[in-house]
Amino acid sequence: MEKLSFVGKSLPRKDALIKITGRAAYADDREFAGMLYAAAVRSPRPRVKILSISAAAASRIPGYVTLVTYKDIPGVNKWPLVMRDYPFLPEKEARFAGETVALAVAETAAAAKAAARLVEIKFKELPFIDDPLKALEKKSIKIYGKNNVISSFVIKKGAVDKAFDKAAYVAEGEFFTNYQVHAYLETQGAIAIPESDGGVTVHSSTQCPFYILDAVAAALGLPYHKVKILQTVTGGGFGGKEDMPALVASHAALCAVKTGRPVKLIYGRKEDFQSMSKRHPGWARVAYGADKNGRLTACRVKYVLDGGAYATLSPIVLWRGTVHAAGPYKIDNVYIETFAAATNKVSCGAFRGFGQPQICFAQESLIDELAAKIGMDPVDFRLKNMLEPGDKTVTGQKINSSCGLKEIVLAVRRRSGWNKKVAGNRLQMTGGKDKVRGIGFAVTYYGVGLGAKGRYLDRAGALVNIYKDSSVGVNVGNAEMGQGALTVLAQIAAETLNAPYESVRVEEVDTSKVPDSGPTVASRTTLMSGNAIIDAAGPLRERIFKTAFDLLVLKGARAAGQMTASGGVFYMGGKSVTFSEVSGECWNRRHKMSEQGWYAAPRTTFKMDNGQGDAYVIYSYSADAAEVEVDLKTGVAKVLKIWAAYDVGKIVNPRLAIGQAQGGILQGMSWALYENLVYKNGIMINPNFTDYVMATAADKPEYDITFIEKPYAEGPYKAKGMGEVPLIGVAPAVANAIANACGARVRSVPLLPEKVWGELKRIKN
Amino acid sequence: MEKLSFVGKSLPRKDALIKITGRAAYADDREFAGMLYAAAVRSPRPRVKILSISAAAASRIPGYVTLVTYKDIPGVNKWPLVMRDYPFLPEKEARFAGETVALAVAETAAAAKAAARLVEIKFKELPFIDDPLKALEKKSIKIYGKNNVISSFVIKKGAVDKAFDKAAYVAEGEFFTNYQVHAYLETQGAIAIPESDGGVTVHSSTQCPFYILDAVAAALGLPYHKVKILQTVTGGGFGGKEDMPALVASHAALCAVKTGRPVKLIYGRKEDFQSMSKRHPGWARVAYGADKNGRLTACRVKYVLDGGAYATLSPIVLWRGTVHAAGPYKIDNVYIETFAAATNKVSCGAFRGFGQPQICFAQESLIDELAAKIGMDPVDFRLKNMLEPGDKTVTGQKINSSCGLKEIVLAVRRRSGWNKKVAGNRLQMTGGKDKVRGIGFAVTYYGVGLGAKGRYLDRAGALVNIYKDSSVGVNVGNAEMGQGALTVLAQIAAETLNAPYESVRVEEVDTSKVPDSGPTVASRTTLMSGNAIIDAAGPLRERIFKTAFDLLVLKGARAAGQMTASGGVFYMGGKSVTFSEVSGECWNRRHKMSEQGWYAAPRTTFKMDNGQGDAYVIYSYSADAAEVEVDLKTGVAKVLKIWAAYDVGKIVNPRLAIGQAQGGILQGMSWALYENLVYKNGIMINPNFTDYVMATAADKPEYDITFIEKPYAEGPYKAKGMGEVPLIGVAPAVANAIANACGARVRSVPLLPEKVWGELKRIKN
Repeated sequence: MEKLSFVGKSLPRKDALIKITGRAAYADDREFAGMLYAAAVRSPRPRVKILSISAAAASRIPGYVTLVTYKDIPGVNKWPLVMRDYPFLPEKEARFAGETVALAVAETAAAAKAAARLVEIKFKELPFIDDPLKALEKKSIKIYGKNNVISSFVIKKGAVDKAFDKAAYVAEGEFFTNYQVHAYLETQGAIAIPESDGGVTVHSSTQCPFYILDAVAAALGLPYHKVKILQTVTGGGFGGKEDMPALVASHAALCAVKTGRPVKLIYGRKEDFQSMSKRHPGWARVAYGADKNGRLTACRVKYVLDGGAYATLSPIVLWRGTVHAAGPYKIDNVYIETFAAATNKVSCGAFRGFGQPQICFAQESLIDELAAKIGMDPVDFRLKNMLEPGDKTVTGQKINSSCGLKEIVLAVRRRSGWNKKVAGNRLQMTGGKDKVRGIGFAVTYYGVGLGAKGRYLDRAGALVNIYKDSSVGVNVGNAEMGQGALTVLAQIAAETLNAPYESVRVEEVDTSKVPDSGPTVASRTTLMSGNAIIDAAGPLRERIFKTAFDLLVLKGARAAGQMTASGGVFYMGGKSVTFSEVSGECWNRRHKMSEQGWYAAPRTTFKMDNGQGDAYVIYSYSADAAEVEVDLKTGVAKVLKIWAAYDVGKIVNPRLAIGQAQGGILQGMSWALYENLVYKNGIMINPNFTDYVMATAADKPEYDITFIEKPYAEGPYKAKGMGEVPLIGVAPAVANAIANACGARVRSVPLLPEKVWGELKRIKN
Repeated sequence: MEKLSFVGKSLPRKDALIKITGRAAYADDREFAGMLYAAAVRSPRPRVKILSISAAAASRIPGYVTLVTYKDIPGVNKWPLVMRDYPFLPEKEARFAGETVALAVAETAAAAKAAARLVEIKFKELPFIDDPLKALEKKSIKIYGKNNVISSFVIKKGAVDKAFDKAAYVAEGEFFTNYQVHAYLETQGAIAIPESDGGVTVHSSTQCPFYILDAVAAALGLPYHKVKILQTVTGGGFGGKEDMPALVASHAALCAVKTGRPVKLIYGRKEDFQSMSKRHPGWARVAYGADKNGRLTACRVKYVLDGGAYATLSPIVLWRGTVHAAGPYKIDNVYIETFAAATNKVSCGAFRGFGQPQICFAQESLIDELAAKIGMDPVDFRLKNMLEPGDKTVTGQKINSSCGLKEIVLAVRRRSGWNKKVAGNRLQMTGGKDKVRGIGFAVTYYGVGLGAKGRYLDRAGALVNIYKDSSVGVNVGNAEMGQGALTVLAQIAAETLNAPYESVRVEEVDTSKVPDSGPTVASRTTLMSGNAIIDAAGPLRERIFKTAFDLLVLKGARAAGQMTASGGVFYMGGKSVTFSEVSGECWNRRHKMSEQGWYAAPRTTFKMDNGQGDAYVIYSYSADAAEVEVDLKTGVAKVLKIWAAYDVGKIVNPRLAIGQAQGGILQGMSWALYENLVYKNGIMINPNFTDYVMATAADKPEYDITFIEKPYAEGPYKAKGMGEVPLIGVAPAVANAIANACGARVRSVPLLPEKVWGELKRIKN
């Protein structure tokens, strides 16, 4: 490959300036003439039969305009998302406390909120379920379908019972992980504007503009060509702005169409907690078996996710968790069965890691427990069993050459000083005599993109325009939400066209400019949109390079020479010509300077009935070592340092990649140690940042981050994807470090001080 | 060719409903939050040296915000249009009464206007020129370049002096045509919105969004990828919204960037009259020579246009007039010299017909005079000399098979009852004894598209999206301005894709969606954007047709069958499948359902130095017969009926084509008879609809319209273009009819009663 000019460099973020200057226009910053405001009226109880909804009192609020209920839906009252079970507005039954039942619309945001509080819902309480394991019991009341099961998968390989019978060592355990709140800086919000032709334009804070297009068109009964979704600058997503914005936007659109005016709907933090999706609480019973040489021979998993009241993305989240449940290991005998169970609580959905962190916590905790039983160093045990190129995953997928798992494990072991620390640290006093340090390890892998379960959506478009002044406009269907897509995709476009990086702008997502490109999730943006940009830029590149050659010949460069292109300039025989000159000449020649590109991920072979086949097109890998200090008096664990190494293919922008890694680690650590959303009797009791504790900058560990770039031939400039993999292994690494430090093996996330302290007490007694 | 389902049918206008219900959002209908209003401060005198500009008094108006002058231009103070002589805002010299010198910005439109009135311009009057013929005199003061010549062209063919010496018959005359005001229902207007990233979005009533992109980017010093132009619903253009909206939009953009708020700038009717472009007044001395058999042998033309203060589009308008100056005739010896002269009056520019109506009036009047001298019937004389396939124009261009001139002339002669009327009507009393009737004829041709002079711009793009729900979104760079582009282009897209017409929507023009597609002028939209749509739809059609075939086979149609497609349905072997089903399956297969298309007109060979070569890629043709009634007492001429026939290639939508014809005829008749803009001492004295008289519905003649569709192989479904050709021949047909009715040969447009009456008096004496 030729030397790269832009890809692989830590070029400045495209959106840095507007963000640090405060000029970035988030949803709530956008104002439209004649705009009204909506506020949601929410169900107060976990499960109710709606008897009537009255705006009599609300309508006396000055500025009150109207109340929007399911009766105002001109289209179909089914959000078109996976299971199509979620009504835009419930007609008879509300299924969780916080569910939007109606929307009050008023001239000001304050009036809308005041009116919403005065809307009277007459209801009858119905019996509810708040425990997913109970939901799966035969005798339970049925709140969803015939058996409260939203979705279920299985992976069967080999003869697992026999393998356990023959195993020399077995480790088994029951694990639990709690909710995680996305805690995006910007709450959910959308503005819908009715257009004069009966269409609607929606500005939304979202990861998935095309999900909104699907939803708004369905709710309003409009053809897609009359609905336009524009992504606003988005203040964080982490999965929380995958599906949910479509509901919020549809509500705003219903209000806009009913009133004929723009309507803004911005969530307060409390209602965002109460009603927007969360990371699924997960319960798992996992067992691993190994032979006397320490080779993994068997794995059995039962994995249950608490789906909440509606399916939303639970089937997809569950499937990813299923596929990755056994971990990145060679195991011949596997039985994995998984369930997403319905409860009368908030719907759970996408969250960075997408069903993997929960089961990875169980898996990597148990791997340590098993290593201990065998008497092996946990890293050596992993090295012995982990996937390498040519090996097969538990679904039978052959790992190709883009697998740096062994290298990253070795890198983390070396850099962390593992060998010295792991043996010596337990009960070694540091600081005060009540503090001990330990180190823990975890590995994980992550299927990049949507994989077999989302294969119909795993395609992306890109529109690349080279304007007459040689500035470049790039349009994609995937969204910037803080992760750096604008920057990375601009680098890919600049590289392919040999255009100066400064001349490339990735524009705001507009669903009328590029075809449905699927969601901005699953660490797929660099891969999918990057490849679509390369596809669009391909014919442009050809015209530009040909024209550059012509111009260089005209300038007197010998035609026989070999032209080179770098940094936005073309060189041959001592002459040079800039991208700007070349693109001007292309315009003079009336070349086509705009192209629509497309990329569809390769087909996968996974079969749903037995869980065998290729599940994802490619995997990224991570290894984490966490060093913790545990206060033996209080059980408080503090993470001192995380060494992490990743193989996510070619790194397009090292500085951004490090940012993604640091953010993922911190978010994973926060979930591991602190975040604890609590329901009591079907009511969320800490829906706010005062009572819901998260890691802050003060809790930030030291980071040591390494990239091993195993090229992926199908990736744009050999890149894979890295948004999620840094989060996944943090919790088990921390848990293993706590166990290493003080012997307390906590099998439930968050690893709260009282749990650690309880274990310590149990060990002592 | 297969049978057409949508092209050739009078399908309903796409924009009918929003227009008749009043819901269409014109520029002034659009409101933005925090919007300010601008009003122009205009030069009061024809030519002034600007000494100072003061907002001291203006600033006391409540709501006054700021004054924008040339000092506020962050970019280059040169409107990038053809000659680049027009500053966005003048620095030292204002060159015509009405020129925008500064802009007052205020919180309300009324405050902006009040403030603008109070802005004090201190100036010194400079000597000025108001007569283009005087401007060309050597001794005149110089107000533009070295010789007051904006532009000049020549066509030389054969030996014209010798040919006139040998001619058996010669007719010669001097002709004048006055201004014409576009009189679009909607005055000029734009709204500019500053974007958070330092870019700007402009909503403009315009024919040429890309001219605005050029201008706004230049004025603001922004790269194109930070400037987005959206075309509002546009209430008429007729050429008046070709170049001028770029100036208006740039002014709005300068105000928006200075204030950091959206700024609306909507013209009042008076200032629109005073400062926006007009049809050029034209002066011509023309001579034709014929041999004794009535064959045209020589033509000499001197043609001068009054360009006004700045070049704007004068060079291009003049060039078109030059190329067509001799008329659609075979003439071996030709000398045509043309000039656009500068004067200190409003700049003249594009107007339906674009420099042709003025010279066609001279040419077709003289052809009648020459026929009379020879003693030939004017239609026979034309038939003898007119261009037919295989003939060459005066520029040496060979006319191809798409030329129905002879057929349309025969059709008009037959349908109008020409032979009976032309001989018998003169001085035949009808109604009262003072009224006489007569009939007149004219033919013309019109080079479709931009031709050799505009060849760098003669290309167009199109973005066609087939959405997941099978609705189709079409984006082009050419604009709907009342002429029916949305409808005709939707028909072309529907035909190419075999998509139901109802499912196709042509979206508002957005310069970030399609590459620069040139202006919406020169009757080029159907041809250029139509072909670009076909180019975009081509690969989509291939995928759709292939998938339809597969689905039909799956449904049991024998694979051996021949599939047919019509009306949005695919048929084979007794089975059928709809476009909607097929496009759904294409999405399931993850086919690329969005394509960017492109069309560049074929190269032309015209040489500017001698005026020889192919000037345009193809020509449309018209023939008009006008029957008039002249009141001998007053000189008032009334047009009773116009028989017109056109060869504009395939008619995509007959009802719209008839509408274009009727509109063109009425606008041509209005110019011929009524429209009379008057300057005195460099000041326009009737800039309003009270004193500037136009044809109204009451003046509407009876129409008889015939189409002869000579297929153009390069055209979309064999179409050429028809926007302008209906206007061009009306004035000479009417003038010839007046002469036929009463003997009065008026050589100046408008054919005012006093001129007719004067001629009658002259004849009598």
